[in-house]
Amino acid sequence: MARPTPVSGFPEWLPAGRLVEQAIIDRLRGTFELWGYSGLETRAVEPLEQLLSKGEIDKEVYVLRRLQADADDPLDASGLALHYDLTVPFARYVVENSGRLHFPLKRYQIQKCWRGERPQEGRYREFLQADIDVVGLGDLPFHYETELPVVLAEALSGLPLPPVRMQVNNRKVSQGFFRGLGLEDLGGVLRTVDKIDKIGPVEVARLLQADLGATAGQAEAVLAFASIQAADGSVADRVAALGVADPLLDEGMGELVGVVEAARAAVPGFLVADLKIARGLDYYTGTVYETQLVGHEALGSICSGGRYDTLASDGDVRYPGVGVSVGVTRLVSRLLGQELVTSSRGVPTCVLVAVVAEDQRAASDRTAAALRRRGIAAEVAPRADKFGKQIRYADRRGIPFVWFPSTEEPTAGEVKDIRSGEQVPAVSDEWQPPAADLQPHLVAPDTTGD
Amino acid sequence: MARPTPVSGFPEWLPAGRLVEQAIIDRLRGTFELWGYSGLETRAVEPLEQLLSKGEIDKEVYVLRRLQADADDPLDASGLALHYDLTVPFARYVVENSGRLHFPLKRYQIQKCWRGERPQEGRYREFLQADIDVVGLGDLPFHYETELPVVLAEALSGLPLPPVRMQVNNRKVSQGFFRGLGLEDLGGVLRTVDKIDKIGPVEVARLLQADLGATAGQAEAVLAFASIQAADGSVADRVAALGVADPLLDEGMGELVGVVEAARAAVPGFLVADLKIARGLDYYTGTVYETQLVGHEALGSICSGGRYDTLASDGDVRYPGVGVSVGVTRLVSRLLGQELVTSSRGVPTCVLVAVVAEDQRAASDRTAAALRRRGIAAEVAPRADKFGKQIRYADRRGIPFVWFPSTEEPTAGEVKDIRSGEQVPAVSDEWQPPAADLQPHLVAPDTTGD
Repeated sequence: MARPTPVSGFPEWLPAGRLVEQAIIDRLRGTFELWGYSGLETRAVEPLEQLLSKGEIDKEVYVLRRLQADADDPLDASGLALHYDLTVPFARYVVENSGRLHFPLKRYQIQKCWRGERPQEGRYREFLQADIDVVGLGDLPFHYETELPVVLAEALSGLPLPPVRMQVNNRKVSQGFFRGLGLEDLGGVLRTVDKIDKIGPVEVARLLQADLGATAGQAEAVLAFASIQAADGSVADRVAALGVADPLLDEGMGELVGVVEAARAAVPGFLVADLKIARGLDYYTGTVYETQLVGHEALGSICSGGRYDTLASDGDVRYPGVGVSVGVTRLVSRLLGQELVTSSRGVPTCVLVAVVAEDQRAASDRTAAALRRRGIAAEVAPRADKFGKQIRYADRRGIPFVWFPSTEEPTAGEVKDIRSGEQVPAVSDEWQPPAADLQPHLVAPDTTGD
Repeated sequence: MARPTPVSGFPEWLPAGRLVEQAIIDRLRGTFELWGYSGLETRAVEPLEQLLSKGEIDKEVYVLRRLQADADDPLDASGLALHYDLTVPFARYVVENSGRLHFPLKRYQIQKCWRGERPQEGRYREFLQADIDVVGLGDLPFHYETELPVVLAEALSGLPLPPVRMQVNNRKVSQGFFRGLGLEDLGGVLRTVDKIDKIGPVEVARLLQADLGATAGQAEAVLAFASIQAADGSVADRVAALGVADPLLDEGMGELVGVVEAARAAVPGFLVADLKIARGLDYYTGTVYETQLVGHEALGSICSGGRYDTLASDGDVRYPGVGVSVGVTRLVSRLLGQELVTSSRGVPTCVLVAVVAEDQRAASDRTAAALRRRGIAAEVAPRADKFGKQIRYADRRGIPFVWFPSTEEPTAGEVKDIRSGEQVPAVSDEWQPPAADLQPHLVAPDTTGD
């Protein structure tokens, strides 16, 4: 075949890059399971009308067609499309299986999604998302809205990333404030405020007056409100100082302070209340979350979500929930692209077992098997080349150790740390690498010394 | 929404079923990494012409179309389709990135594939495959053909499955034998022999004579050849007894005996030479593998593959390889459908921390945090219900332990094993569950007693 070229918007990683992505996935999954979230996967496809009925017309949907489709076959007649997020499929899964699920249901889901958007940095046509949601039957206690930021903070704090900061707001706070201020098109105001980082406060004020009938004083109050940031309960005092009274505002502020204070106690420094956060999606009804990689704000949010009361329903039964979605591909592409994180080695292998001569390969196989039995990843050199060439095989891949089997004692040999050059006698069913070398792990290159 | 119904051919599991699938994936991945295989993922799509040029016309391909496609946009002009296996995408990836990869490249890849086939048991339109391949630059030593069965045997033997048996053959053995016998359409004979389990030896003999110009004696010799099975090097003697001489047969028999003897030494009882194994695909050139779940042979092979010399090439450079592909969905659907394996519990949670009263929820949160810090998966009860109801929450999910926090001592409490009813005092930063309860694990229900 002619050398193929990448398909724009469908990123792929080299083996060392995949190790970085896999370590991040493992950390997320491990934390989610530690908190009792069940792993689920849904099929990649949903009925097209289902996806479109969610009103996400801005998300360009990929439709599937069988090359050998048969118009008379009911399996082909109903249009299928690739899911563009994991929330809509999960809502469908909950309604479909509700009689066989236990509520509240805590689930995580780590899968690819597809959107036919114009590719650019941080936006891809195929991308990996890692979602957690808690869904109730009929109702869902508020405290799960305080749990999610703590789970995410724990997951991300175990990774050598740039600092991560979560911003939260509450729909009831925004809508109550705008209503108490006398504004009417609350959704319109919310969507306009959502643009503040893109178009700036002056333009937001102009739009509020030109399009949404706000007075200059109302626009000014909205901007004052949207400028409030606080890492503790003082957010309530600062809003109160704006002199707007509304029962929905009071209810939402109680929840917002609850989220901020719970995060301040459990994961100090991770979360701030930021009242300009709006989230575009209509279905949020309470807490909303966005998350920035500090120093990389232009990348966009790497973890967003919120509380929804009405995403899924089945006749009389509602399934309210709260969830967040980590943009794994967005995060990993930045980490790899700017070399913010690397893997300690390029392959899983800890030890390359050298081959003395091709007719003694079985001895090397036995050494490798002995190491693997004790959880030490080992492979045997592909050829009985000169030892220098076998060492280069390890060096190119970042394999830290090369084992030279003894030609006399089956379990004996010498093991060389090819980073230091140190070589010591060893026994294959006893030798242990330093704990830090057992598995590949993430490393943040030290940029301070450069 | 109205209650949705499943889409035929796109299976989904309940949380407890996903735990079974995840445990199998984890075991495969863990073993692959222990042997030094690098994890890779490729995009879900390939250019349509690329997929069709592989001649796999029997695999019905799903074509993608953007709902808002723009005919003038080069990103939309080139047709994209979902991959139907992981071998073709991997071959493309190798050629595309060859300058940045190290050879021989050992890689595993665990991803969904899509085929628009008529769904039936063991065949799905969306299914998970777990592949390992070793690919060389220019050439690839034979010993990797002996490695793959050992890797697979180790991976599968760690799971409580019905017995697994791998059958191997070698293309050179079959083709050399047929040629030495005087037959001409070697591919045709191979494809006819491949049908022996479906249509029986009598019909195979008839087809060989009617369609492929074999004499009755040649057909009889082919059947005698195809009936040979041996778990050791005696396979060579049994073929020799048929009195056919051919240099390709000799070369292939040396390899086949090498694979059988290596497996017999490393993983006794796992592998047999079975000379009726042919594998339909044209690109295999040496060892071919199939794998049966003993007692479930009608399910089809759960792990197939072989040696290929020419799948990928880039002008003058060839990338020969050897690989096998585990049909994870085929395996898991049988295991779940016949309840051959279950998960020891339905959720990751080891301990449910009860809530004494809603205003003491923070105490339960701290207890759960202390357990999680030591790697014990813990969640806090959703509501401060009566303890009986909180225990039922755990019981329904199979959570083995419920922790009742002390209202006086922050780290103290009592922990109840809800299976035995035993309840003991415990301290949250010291208590340890039995090792078998730390993580959910696979259990094969004991059917011998029924």
